[in-house]
Amino acid sequence: MSWFTRFKRVLVGKPIHAKHAHHERLPKVFGLPVFASDALSSVAYASEEILLVLVLASSAALHFLFPVSLWLGVLMIIVAFSYYQTIHAYPKGGGTYLVSTENLGSMAGRTAGAALLIDYVLTVAVSVSSGAAAIASYYAPARPYMVFIAVGAIALITIANLRGAKESGVLFAVPTYTFVALVLGLITTALIGGLSHGHLKPADVTPPPEGFHAVNAFLLLRAFAASCTALTGTEAIADGVQAFRPPEAKNASQTLVMMVVLLLMMFIGVSYVAMHEGIVPIPTEAANYRTVLAQIGQRFFPDWLFLTLQIATAAILFLAANTAFADFPRLCSFVAKDGYLPRQLTSLGDRLVFQNGILLLAGTAIVLVIVYAADTHSLVPLYAMGVFVSFTLSQAGMTAKWYREIARPFRNWKLYVSGFGALVTLIVTGILLLTKFEEGAWLIVVALAVMLGIFALIKRHYLYLAKELSVTPADRLAEVKTTALLLVPRMHRGILQAIAYARSLSTDVRAVHVTLDPDGTGQIKEDWNRFGADMPLVILASPYRSLIEPLIEYIDEALREDPEAVITVIVPQAVPKRWYHGILHNNIAVTLKLALASRKNVVVTNVRYFLK
Amino acid sequence: MSWFTRFKRVLVGKPIHAKHAHHERLPKVFGLPVFASDALSSVAYASEEILLVLVLASSAALHFLFPVSLWLGVLMIIVAFSYYQTIHAYPKGGGTYLVSTENLGSMAGRTAGAALLIDYVLTVAVSVSSGAAAIASYYAPARPYMVFIAVGAIALITIANLRGAKESGVLFAVPTYTFVALVLGLITTALIGGLSHGHLKPADVTPPPEGFHAVNAFLLLRAFAASCTALTGTEAIADGVQAFRPPEAKNASQTLVMMVVLLLMMFIGVSYVAMHEGIVPIPTEAANYRTVLAQIGQRFFPDWLFLTLQIATAAILFLAANTAFADFPRLCSFVAKDGYLPRQLTSLGDRLVFQNGILLLAGTAIVLVIVYAADTHSLVPLYAMGVFVSFTLSQAGMTAKWYREIARPFRNWKLYVSGFGALVTLIVTGILLLTKFEEGAWLIVVALAVMLGIFALIKRHYLYLAKELSVTPADRLAEVKTTALLLVPRMHRGILQAIAYARSLSTDVRAVHVTLDPDGTGQIKEDWNRFGADMPLVILASPYRSLIEPLIEYIDEALREDPEAVITVIVPQAVPKRWYHGILHNNIAVTLKLALASRKNVVVTNVRYFLK
Repeated sequence: MSWFTRFKRVLVGKPIHAKHAHHERLPKVFGLPVFASDALSSVAYASEEILLVLVLASSAALHFLFPVSLWLGVLMIIVAFSYYQTIHAYPKGGGTYLVSTENLGSMAGRTAGAALLIDYVLTVAVSVSSGAAAIASYYAPARPYMVFIAVGAIALITIANLRGAKESGVLFAVPTYTFVALVLGLITTALIGGLSHGHLKPADVTPPPEGFHAVNAFLLLRAFAASCTALTGTEAIADGVQAFRPPEAKNASQTLVMMVVLLLMMFIGVSYVAMHEGIVPIPTEAANYRTVLAQIGQRFFPDWLFLTLQIATAAILFLAANTAFADFPRLCSFVAKDGYLPRQLTSLGDRLVFQNGILLLAGTAIVLVIVYAADTHSLVPLYAMGVFVSFTLSQAGMTAKWYREIARPFRNWKLYVSGFGALVTLIVTGILLLTKFEEGAWLIVVALAVMLGIFALIKRHYLYLAKELSVTPADRLAEVKTTALLLVPRMHRGILQAIAYARSLSTDVRAVHVTLDPDGTGQIKEDWNRFGADMPLVILASPYRSLIEPLIEYIDEALREDPEAVITVIVPQAVPKRWYHGILHNNIAVTLKLALASRKNVVVTNVRYFLK
Repeated sequence: MSWFTRFKRVLVGKPIHAKHAHHERLPKVFGLPVFASDALSSVAYASEEILLVLVLASSAALHFLFPVSLWLGVLMIIVAFSYYQTIHAYPKGGGTYLVSTENLGSMAGRTAGAALLIDYVLTVAVSVSSGAAAIASYYAPARPYMVFIAVGAIALITIANLRGAKESGVLFAVPTYTFVALVLGLITTALIGGLSHGHLKPADVTPPPEGFHAVNAFLLLRAFAASCTALTGTEAIADGVQAFRPPEAKNASQTLVMMVVLLLMMFIGVSYVAMHEGIVPIPTEAANYRTVLAQIGQRFFPDWLFLTLQIATAAILFLAANTAFADFPRLCSFVAKDGYLPRQLTSLGDRLVFQNGILLLAGTAIVLVIVYAADTHSLVPLYAMGVFVSFTLSQAGMTAKWYREIARPFRNWKLYVSGFGALVTLIVTGILLLTKFEEGAWLIVVALAVMLGIFALIKRHYLYLAKELSVTPADRLAEVKTTALLLVPRMHRGILQAIAYARSLSTDVRAVHVTLDPDGTGQIKEDWNRFGADMPLVILASPYRSLIEPLIEYIDEALREDPEAVITVIVPQAVPKRWYHGILHNNIAVTLKLALASRKNVVVTNVRYFLK
């Protein structure tokens, strides 16, 4: 086992056979937590994002929290209804990339794909940042370390995914159901407690730094846009229909309904309580910093239950980040299969490819977390844009599908459901772009454009290659003559197999020995006469103590002598028993390959011998 | 040209042909600056180091600066005399490693070698730190950036050496002679100026932080030990006799004499003036920080000449660091040749090997500079130990040589010169160890022991290998049967040569195609029938989208079928025209090699095709 393999094993564990790398089919009770952690976890920050906008106006504006939440509830139902249809239309999995490409063409598919890839990065960044906030909300001394906690969470999730940890349903179920139960319990407790007081409590409002704005339509749109992050993750179930037990479509769509009902109850409940209690967001810098959900928890829960709530919140948020790690490389492989990303990404079953995707996602998310100082509120304006672009394209794709496939489409309600969904999500995309443009949505537009540009360049290269390399009727298979050069550093047992191997390759085979000491070649000549068989030994002197230079000169000469022949340079390579002995056994083949990189008709190859 | 080659070219320049990499023979006038910059540059800090010890006692103790400097002068003459003999005894170059190994055996040689390697690292660290101090002494705002300046200087010297910049004599001559002229001029000016005042000036003494010690023998020994750094570099000329014009030994020894005379004049002159002027070292933290030499310069020179002095001081110090960059890899190659360092280091003519040595030296020196905050005074206790260990071994070696080679050794003065040199340097080594032990000399003892341990382990491994791999009369050259497997990702023009090459290697040759999509294999089969000639095509299905797994299974099966055969896997590799297209062309051979690392009888090889 090479040292590289050993190093990898320590870091990422033993290779898992491809057959075990796939989900087993999930019952609904596990399907919900596995696919819904992303959507459900947004309860941890969505209400707060609305309040952060409203608080800019006046404390009276805080009353709009509940109505805005209701609008979002309606949007949620529309989107869910539309995805319900997608699940039944694509029982093999209706990923956005697939649906868009199939029904609206490659350009739409690529746009949806790029938007989703961006969004996976943001899912990771927002979720771990919000998870860090949940921790700091209970344990104040952790506050200066939020970036550290967020980056640490990404690192842990990355390592778990690199190791190929099996995603067990239980791992997802415990925190997800705990979170749901605690939030619903919290809402119930608050409603009873809140009603008993019968009036709004004055909250310890920290006045916003920039002064107050008037409540107007634009402010309400901004508040609405801020809440749209709650919808991210809704598409997850439609992507993964095949992970459910049969009948897949039925089970998946029932899970979708369950998810939306839970999400609505929690989100609207939290918003209602926050409004009723007059809770406003506390800035991160403040001494009594707490998220809105934590403020409610602290007010109505005993300390131990409050602690449990914060732990469950952090846990479900980290799980939400984890789902992006499964989706990102998979989406990359779909895009790569169509030639818009490097072709090697298609073989997702190869760990190295899978791992590269994971590292790319982790690296980008870490950069975002550090740049935005793990501040959920700063990251959210970037979020949701990508999701709604892909929502719109997915629904539009379904609309096009119905229009084409149904005999009299305008008489069918399916067309209207998808069409309405597409229209609404398109409008929301516009609202998001408008209201969040300066806060960061422009960055997503730029990133989208850059990614589409890269996709196009990659595709162009592959198309060019296909043309350039296409076999024409004029092409003939030539005969090739091989000259084998066997490098002999000195005579030893390990070289015997290399000699035999070299002889098996070609009839024109020569041994080459580079000497730094022209007076001391007697030994090698003598040894060679005993074992070299009929192979001639060429001795190259190296007055300036280089092993490479004389070899290259000799190879160049041989290439000039016979420009048609292919020269195979055979380099015996010791494989030491202990990896750290590797530094005592230089592999000259690597250097030689680099030095000969521009020569055609040269093949450099290692024949290994194993040390005991 | 591969992207790696391109990258390297940008960084380290075009490869220089080995023939040009060597010094031309130097006349004495250039030989002095090339070999003496290390020794001469110590004038910049040696007197200061003595004062730093004396100032611990009382201002009265400062009078001992001059006597201590005179002792050092005597030691310098003894050492120089001894090396004068070495030059004539080894006109081909009497490097310490060679002289010790040849006359005292391998263990002494290795000790000297390890001591010198450590010392080269310290030469770099001390010289650049002292150079940074020279700059900060003139330009106070540079003081907070001394670590930055020192590390930057190492980086620049490293790049220059990686690029293989020819060391021109002129480059060394200008700063060296300027420095010598300015220091001698400064001493002269000061003597005239100082005598005109006729009495000691009271200096602005900053009292030492730890209170005063009594002047006693131990303090004087410490002061003497501190000054011993002035001797580092004395051995350089003896190492490089062959770089001089013939008659080499005569020219080299004359240069040695010249160097020692200049060094003595400068060092004792500076010490005398410093004492006479009552100059004491100013701590780095002080607002008016200046080195002792800079204090003298500022006092007696007009500003422009003072500036020139500081520039020349920094320049000669950086040159001194540069000499270690030539010596370090060369000494490594000698040690490696004897089997105590990785064997590949012997081929110093290969840029990659040479560059690795340089990067190792630069990296270690940078760590030292950062850890010791570029503070010359903290680094100096580490310095000199290594030099004196190697001085002692070198002189002892010469003594042993005379004793063996001269007919009646005890009647010959050569034996006494070398013997006396060995004895004196041994005593000084003892003094250094004793007086500087706590300040850092213990670290050198530890480093020396660790290096000797590593040397021994490396040698043991090579000896074991030689035994293990030695060819016995029972060894026979077997016949090897080769099975060639040609990977065919899809049919294109680039693969035609690979087909021809595979056919030339073996009669048992098969094409292998891994498909991620078992339904789409019609095209490849059809294409293959046109060009595959008589080669059978094996199609491997990969249900889990891995390219590697099915291949490995197939190879394992083939190995089981015929355990004697060697399987050669031929992977066609695209060589794109632009290096950054490389990411679009995965080379599966690399992954395959890693995956097959533990299989014997498998050879993986690339056949390249060039894209236009």
